[in-house]
Amino acid sequence: MDFLDLEGMLSNLVSIGGQLLLLIIVYVIVAPIGRKAISKAMGHVAKRQKLNEGRKKTLENLLLNVFTYVLLFFFIVTFLGILGIPLAPVLAGAGIVGLAVGFGAQGLVSDIVTGFFILIEKQIDVDDYVTAGGHDGIVEELGLRTTQLRGFDGTLHFIPNRYIQAVNNHTRGNMRALVDMGIGYSENIDQAMEILQNVCDRFREDDRIKEGPDVVGVQSLGSSDVVLRVIAQTEKMLQWEVERDLRKAMKEALDDAGIEIPFPHRTIVQKETE
Amino acid sequence: MDFLDLEGMLSNLVSIGGQLLLLIIVYVIVAPIGRKAISKAMGHVAKRQKLNEGRKKTLENLLLNVFTYVLLFFFIVTFLGILGIPLAPVLAGAGIVGLAVGFGAQGLVSDIVTGFFILIEKQIDVDDYVTAGGHDGIVEELGLRTTQLRGFDGTLHFIPNRYIQAVNNHTRGNMRALVDMGIGYSENIDQAMEILQNVCDRFREDDRIKEGPDVVGVQSLGSSDVVLRVIAQTEKMLQWEVERDLRKAMKEALDDAGIEIPFPHRTIVQKETE
Amino acid sequence: MDFLDLEGMLSNLVSIGGQLLLLIIVYVIVAPIGRKAISKAMGHVAKRQKLNEGRKKTLENLLLNVFTYVLLFFFIVTFLGILGIPLAPVLAGAGIVGLAVGFGAQGLVSDIVTGFFILIEKQIDVDDYVTAGGHDGIVEELGLRTTQLRGFDGTLHFIPNRYIQAVNNHTRGNMRALVDMGIGYSENIDQAMEILQNVCDRFREDDRIKEGPDVVGVQSLGSSDVVLRVIAQTEKMLQWEVERDLRKAMKEALDDAGIEIPFPHRTIVQKETE
Amino acid sequence: MDFLDLEGMLSNLVSIGGQLLLLIIVYVIVAPIGRKAISKAMGHVAKRQKLNEGRKKTLENLLLNVFTYVLLFFFIVTFLGILGIPLAPVLAGAGIVGLAVGFGAQGLVSDIVTGFFILIEKQIDVDDYVTAGGHDGIVEELGLRTTQLRGFDGTLHFIPNRYIQAVNNHTRGNMRALVDMGIGYSENIDQAMEILQNVCDRFREDDRIKEGPDVVGVQSLGSSDVVLRVIAQTEKMLQWEVERDLRKAMKEALDDAGIEIPFPHRTIVQKETE
Amino acid sequence: MDFLDLEGMLSNLVSIGGQLLLLIIVYVIVAPIGRKAISKAMGHVAKRQKLNEGRKKTLENLLLNVFTYVLLFFFIVTFLGILGIPLAPVLAGAGIVGLAVGFGAQGLVSDIVTGFFILIEKQIDVDDYVTAGGHDGIVEELGLRTTQLRGFDGTLHFIPNRYIQAVNNHTRGNMRALVDMGIGYSENIDQAMEILQNVCDRFREDDRIKEGPDVVGVQSLGSSDVVLRVIAQTEKMLQWEVERDLRKAMKEALDDAGIEIPFPHRTIVQKETE
Amino acid sequence: MDFLDLEGMLSNLVSIGGQLLLLIIVYVIVAPIGRKAISKAMGHVAKRQKLNEGRKKTLENLLLNVFTYVLLFFFIVTFLGILGIPLAPVLAGAGIVGLAVGFGAQGLVSDIVTGFFILIEKQIDVDDYVTAGGHDGIVEELGLRTTQLRGFDGTLHFIPNRYIQAVNNHTRGNMRALVDMGIGYSENIDQAMEILQNVCDRFREDDRIKEGPDVVGVQSLGSSDVVLRVIAQTEKMLQWEVERDLRKAMKEALDDAGIEIPFPHRTIVQKETE
Amino acid sequence: MDFLDLEGMLSNLVSIGGQLLLLIIVYVIVAPIGRKAISKAMGHVAKRQKLNEGRKKTLENLLLNVFTYVLLFFFIVTFLGILGIPLAPVLAGAGIVGLAVGFGAQGLVSDIVTGFFILIEKQIDVDDYVTAGGHDGIVEELGLRTTQLRGFDGTLHFIPNRYIQAVNNHTRGNMRALVDMGIGYSENIDQAMEILQNVCDRFREDDRIKEGPDVVGVQSLGSSDVVLRVIAQTEKMLQWEVERDLRKAMKEALDDAGIEIPFPHRTIVQKETE
Repeated sequence: MDFLDLEGMLSNLVSIGGQLLLLIIVYVIVAPIGRKAISKAMGHVAKRQKLNEGRKKTLENLLLNVFTYVLLFFFIVTFLGILGIPLAPVLAGAGIVGLAVGFGAQGLVSDIVTGFFILIEKQIDVDDYVTAGGHDGIVEELGLRTTQLRGFDGTLHFIPNRYIQAVNNHTRGNMRALVDMGIGYSENIDQAMEILQNVCDRFREDDRIKEGPDVVGVQSLGSSDVVLRVIAQTEKMLQWEVERDLRKAMKEALDDAGIEIPFPHRTIVQKETE
Repeated sequence: MDFLDLEGMLSNLVSIGGQLLLLIIVYVIVAPIGRKAISKAMGHVAKRQKLNEGRKKTLENLLLNVFTYVLLFFFIVTFLGILGIPLAPVLAGAGIVGLAVGFGAQGLVSDIVTGFFILIEKQIDVDDYVTAGGHDGIVEELGLRTTQLRGFDGTLHFIPNRYIQAVNNHTRGNMRALVDMGIGYSENIDQAMEILQNVCDRFREDDRIKEGPDVVGVQSLGSSDVVLRVIAQTEKMLQWEVERDLRKAMKEALDDAGIEIPFPHRTIVQKETE
Repeated sequence: MDFLDLEGMLSNLVSIGGQLLLLIIVYVIVAPIGRKAISKAMGHVAKRQKLNEGRKKTLENLLLNVFTYVLLFFFIVTFLGILGIPLAPVLAGAGIVGLAVGFGAQGLVSDIVTGFFILIEKQIDVDDYVTAGGHDGIVEELGLRTTQLRGFDGTLHFIPNRYIQAVNNHTRGNMRALVDMGIGYSENIDQAMEILQNVCDRFREDDRIKEGPDVVGVQSLGSSDVVLRVIAQTEKMLQWEVERDLRKAMKEALDDAGIEIPFPHRTIVQKETE
Repeated sequence: MDFLDLEGMLSNLVSIGGQLLLLIIVYVIVAPIGRKAISKAMGHVAKRQKLNEGRKKTLENLLLNVFTYVLLFFFIVTFLGILGIPLAPVLAGAGIVGLAVGFGAQGLVSDIVTGFFILIEKQIDVDDYVTAGGHDGIVEELGLRTTQLRGFDGTLHFIPNRYIQAVNNHTRGNMRALVDMGIGYSENIDQAMEILQNVCDRFREDDRIKEGPDVVGVQSLGSSDVVLRVIAQTEKMLQWEVERDLRKAMKEALDDAGIEIPFPHRTIVQKETE
Repeated sequence: MDFLDLEGMLSNLVSIGGQLLLLIIVYVIVAPIGRKAISKAMGHVAKRQKLNEGRKKTLENLLLNVFTYVLLFFFIVTFLGILGIPLAPVLAGAGIVGLAVGFGAQGLVSDIVTGFFILIEKQIDVDDYVTAGGHDGIVEELGLRTTQLRGFDGTLHFIPNRYIQAVNNHTRGNMRALVDMGIGYSENIDQAMEILQNVCDRFREDDRIKEGPDVVGVQSLGSSDVVLRVIAQTEKMLQWEVERDLRKAMKEALDDAGIEIPFPHRTIVQKETE
Repeated sequence: MDFLDLEGMLSNLVSIGGQLLLLIIVYVIVAPIGRKAISKAMGHVAKRQKLNEGRKKTLENLLLNVFTYVLLFFFIVTFLGILGIPLAPVLAGAGIVGLAVGFGAQGLVSDIVTGFFILIEKQIDVDDYVTAGGHDGIVEELGLRTTQLRGFDGTLHFIPNRYIQAVNNHTRGNMRALVDMGIGYSENIDQAMEILQNVCDRFREDDRIKEGPDVVGVQSLGSSDVVLRVIAQTEKMLQWEVERDLRKAMKEALDDAGIEIPFPHRTIVQKETE
Repeated sequence: MDFLDLEGMLSNLVSIGGQLLLLIIVYVIVAPIGRKAISKAMGHVAKRQKLNEGRKKTLENLLLNVFTYVLLFFFIVTFLGILGIPLAPVLAGAGIVGLAVGFGAQGLVSDIVTGFFILIEKQIDVDDYVTAGGHDGIVEELGLRTTQLRGFDGTLHFIPNRYIQAVNNHTRGNMRALVDMGIGYSENIDQAMEILQNVCDRFREDDRIKEGPDVVGVQSLGSSDVVLRVIAQTEKMLQWEVERDLRKAMKEALDDAGIEIPFPHRTIVQKETE
């Protein structure tokens, strides 16, 4: 290195600084304009194609996402170019740096590939309730690299797409409401089933319920109770509400009929103290 | 870059835009036509080859699936080609990008290879009840890359084929109904087995049952009860129903005969308060 | 692309279509003939070499399997060849596609290698009862790529061979029947062992039993009972039946002798209410 | 090696020593100046862009972090250069050393890539309460390579970014306070729900609470109690406090109304000593 | 392909068929001769070198194993050679097929390397009782690729050597017999230890016991009993037998001395019904 | 090989032996001198830079560590060089040996990279109490490749740095003391909280305590008790001591006030013997 | 192959046979001599360097180990050389075989690298009591590839060094003896601590104890007892003995003072039969 040509270096620095400034200004102007344009265009398309709300949000988010990353990518490449660090040879090289970068970046590619297919196969839409990558919640954003879920406890989960092995979508059709009622071993099973079925019949008119509810039979002989199972098909996301209402109604019906819902039993054998 | 040849760039942009528009139009026309053609052709073939319904749906889904992906692939390649980004050299190159893409895409290849063999080996048909990749449900679609299962609780599971290690198909033959009945330690085992066998004999005529049911013997000596096991072979998907009916009938038979189904026992030794 | 030479393209398409048709016809004719020939040849060989039934089925299945895959492979190669897509350069290339395919296909090679050794080392025969890859059942088919097990509950398990880490074959020799009997702490151990040994002696003549049964001693001092262990060697697959019969006989013998099989005990210390 | 040219070696050593000294001096001077400059610049930018405190700290930490590592990198390269060990050929080579280094360093690249996206996607800000990589706590620093969390028990967790699979951010919106109250099976459910709802209504004015609280219904029929669930939306980080207050108020309200919060029940069946 | 030179193809086929036949005949003759020769040679060597039985069987099995695989390898290579498929270029190539095969076969190499060292380091001999790869049993065969263990329940485990991480050999020296005896909290510990030590002294002459048994002291203060531990060194494989005998003798000795072996205790506090 | 030129070989051997001897002597002299020089230099630097004791020990250990490995490396290279085995081509080659070595050594590089960053980021100092790689203890030495922790039970843990995923440093700030006190369901919660707060106030003056302690409220409604939580911030490493003292004082205070700390409760329902 | 030059082949075979014989004879002579020489040399060095016994055995074992493997390596290479199979090109090649071997052998290299550092860093000596790779026991041999531990139950564990992630050495300094004593809730804590401290003081003179024992305070408030913790530092490997003696002495001291060691408590609430 030649430490002496200070003047040349300075003028050089000034020139570089100017270019960087220009670059940043362009970036700052282009970014918000592009984002607005995308949002607007998306609105038009959604209206004409009659996309539902969730799908529209999904696509809009994604396009914004792609736009941001592409812009960022060009920004970085240009930035480095101005500084005189060409990215191409580094990316093309196969030395250690290349190897390390290649391995390190493989996660990124996996994220994008997985995300691409999640979108293409319509596995997830914004506002769906899904389980993915060990977390569950309402989808807030489906990004190129990361999916954001809002958990029921308010937590926002950021899940890189590659960690999403299987998507369990809980909002693609009716859901099942399932209530297990345990009755005493000495009760008459037929009578209990009839009482529960009567409760079920009262619920049949409920708007939230699509099918059933029905008593399906003796699910198991527990250690202290005979378990009867009731199943219904409900509107999606309303299964918990229906279960709560069914549980309350059936408990009260059994109480009214004097049928025991037993506590854990224990048979005691007294042994003579030896 | 030369920022000044605006005119040339514009005319260039227009030309590119026109080509892209044409491409999109072609895509929009070809896609639905192809899909209908496949469905129709499939219908004819299914009739002639007397394929059962499940197999027919499986193949139809798959062909549509393949068709969509192939079309998409050509769409993307052409799209990039129009934009002047040739895909071939990227795919052939072995630099960092290539490495990262290769590694990242390896999951995709695994998906397709696994899916191909699941189909070829007829492991799964649409409407089968299977366990795969840690989820179980009715197969809704068997795709090139993803298998869709509808869980009993209504959830739709999207499982990339590579995560399907072993397929457990519960609809390839008769299924077993198994009921364990615990009787008191002081009861006569022979008498209890006779009573249960009588119940079994009543079920023997049942259309849902293919073999048995039969009392196979003393399965275990539990901490509070002697466990007798009853086994039957049933029509597929009806095993739970049969188990519920058997359970109810056998519980009532034991009750009628005055044979105790015991609660958990505890023998109490009173110790003099020291 | 030249969109104008429609005539040439058409005649080209017709020619290709004809070849494909021919290919499919040949395939449809050759496949069943080959399969029958293999089955017949296998029958002759099996008779002459005095192979047992399981081994014969294993080999026949495998040969049919290999035949199907080889045929399929040539079918696909020829098919692609007719369409003008040569497979060789793709397979030989080392670009991204090659890399991805190589990695993705490595599972397939593992399957075949593992399957090959399972066969060569005679680890599994059709109709054996084995545990492999986390599932257990009767072997229905041992394929080049996949092993099929029929679980006792009727489920058919398809297990890619590579997921079979260790094979546990439960039908290669006699099996052990093991029954643990708990007696009260206040009973005489010698007397109880004598009574159980008497039961064992009655079973000694049983055809299903190869060795024993015998009382081996005090296996453990449980929290409420003294556990005596009885062991026998039985004909394979009959161990559960023998265990059930032994359990019933020994329980009844202890009852007759007035020896207690205790419930869980608890010693209660009453504390003065403070 | 020529062991004799001691003089030349000495003068050489002196020259090298001098250069190293100069390098260290430059480093010692540049480092603190650079850090101060960054902090100041960050302060100005934060004011003008109206960044919130957390984001400001995040960016400042990160810039200092990047600055330190870049400086360190140039320091090491220059250092080795003075000693006559050029780094470039080693990094470019593909021999064993290169291979080992490439593999070994891949973790480092993963750290940086992941960290970069955590920042870009604003998954974490300093002072957020997050769960990441199996630990949870308040973010103290978000670095290029490592994220530091302060656990509630005072422990400082250093988590390399690559081990952060999914980020769960508990401070991105309101949080849920959830209290389950168990009442006796013999109590009137409607009455209990009314009492609890009254308590909820008293809390409605609470500043910390954004929505609710409300009794949602019978969550489950436990083995000894009927469980009623109360849910509220609270200011972030105040959910535990609200839960504690709700729990106390509702317990006291049930006590006042004479509604039982039951202990675990057991039904005892006395058996005649045999 | 030229479909017309049928004559040439036929004569070609005949020639190939003849060669294959010759190959198979040679194989069928050479295989059994070689196996017998190895067994005999092994017998001579074993006698002269005074190898113990287990080692002899191990080596004989292994040599037969190696012989079989080498023969098989040459058979396959020759077979493919006759069919005109040279194996060498495939094995040497580095295309996709090569890559896939290389990765797929790496398990095989791992098996052989591990097996080689298990043998060289004498970790296992035939008839040893070992735990390896998650299974335990008596070694039936130690092969080049697979180790066969016979479990105590009669199952034959085939474990590819690569899955054997650590070998636990239970037959390389004396084994420990360990019995824990719980006595009541109100008993005199010194007295109980003396009584147990007396039992131990009676066992001291036992041929199966190499050292001890001895009472080592108060191992723990359990929730209901004071646990005394007795330890002995026994002949290998006899530890369970010795433990059973010790357990019986010590239980009877404590009974004779009137020292309580307590059931689980519970102190009950009666609360006034509120 | 020429077995006859014994004379030449001998003189060769002598020459080599002499060189090796010289090498060993140099090594034996240089090693201790270098170590002492480092320790001394470190002492001076530590004084001038006012490093705290832990940091000083950390750096000294590390420098000695690096010195030892560098010396060892040159020793081995020279040793092999004298024997005529040049290391360079082996390290540069890319054959099988190279591949195996490269993969095998990658763990070593990971160790060093991780260790380097643990040091640079000051995650650990000697004498810190940390949890790392699944073990916890006081740091005894932070090496280039291995970190040594002294567990509280006296065990010395050697942890290769690569297995240290996240470092949890328990000595970087105050620690939390947390005590949960369960009181009876029939007690007055306000009164109990007042009593506990009084105890807390007495502790407020304690030197070991930095903040609090305070009663934060009703943490949970247990199955038999109402749990009150007390939290304090203490000097690091003194949290357990403070917790023990708090626990004793609060237990005694509740006793004095006659507030019950309940045993597990059970409500018993007597059932008429059927 | 030319099947006719039988004479030439025979003379060739004889020549090869002779060379192999010579090789085996040389091996059989050199091996034991080398081993004895190493043992002797080691004895001298150990005396002069005053190595402790464990270190001496470690080094001797290791040298014998290295010697055996090096000899074996040359034996195999020469053996193959005589048979005309040169190993070098195979090892240098990068075809499939090379790839597979390289991957397969990578475990071997890992073993050696890890073993080398375990030795160099003196993590383990023969006769140490360590936990490594999931097993614990006394080190019997520390080899180049495998470490042998003798478990306390007599099992000999062979652990390939690569599976040793972290070494926990329990014989590098004093060990902790820890005894928890539970006393009744109604007992006076101060009095109980005084009594226990008295017992501790009696033990203070014990040779096996290096520090303490001391009562550190109320460790926890259990569900039925107040737990007091006693800690001591003991000579290594004697901690269990000391714990047993402490436990006995403290139990007897509490008994003498009439302080209750409580059984699990349960508070019973009688409910009127409804």
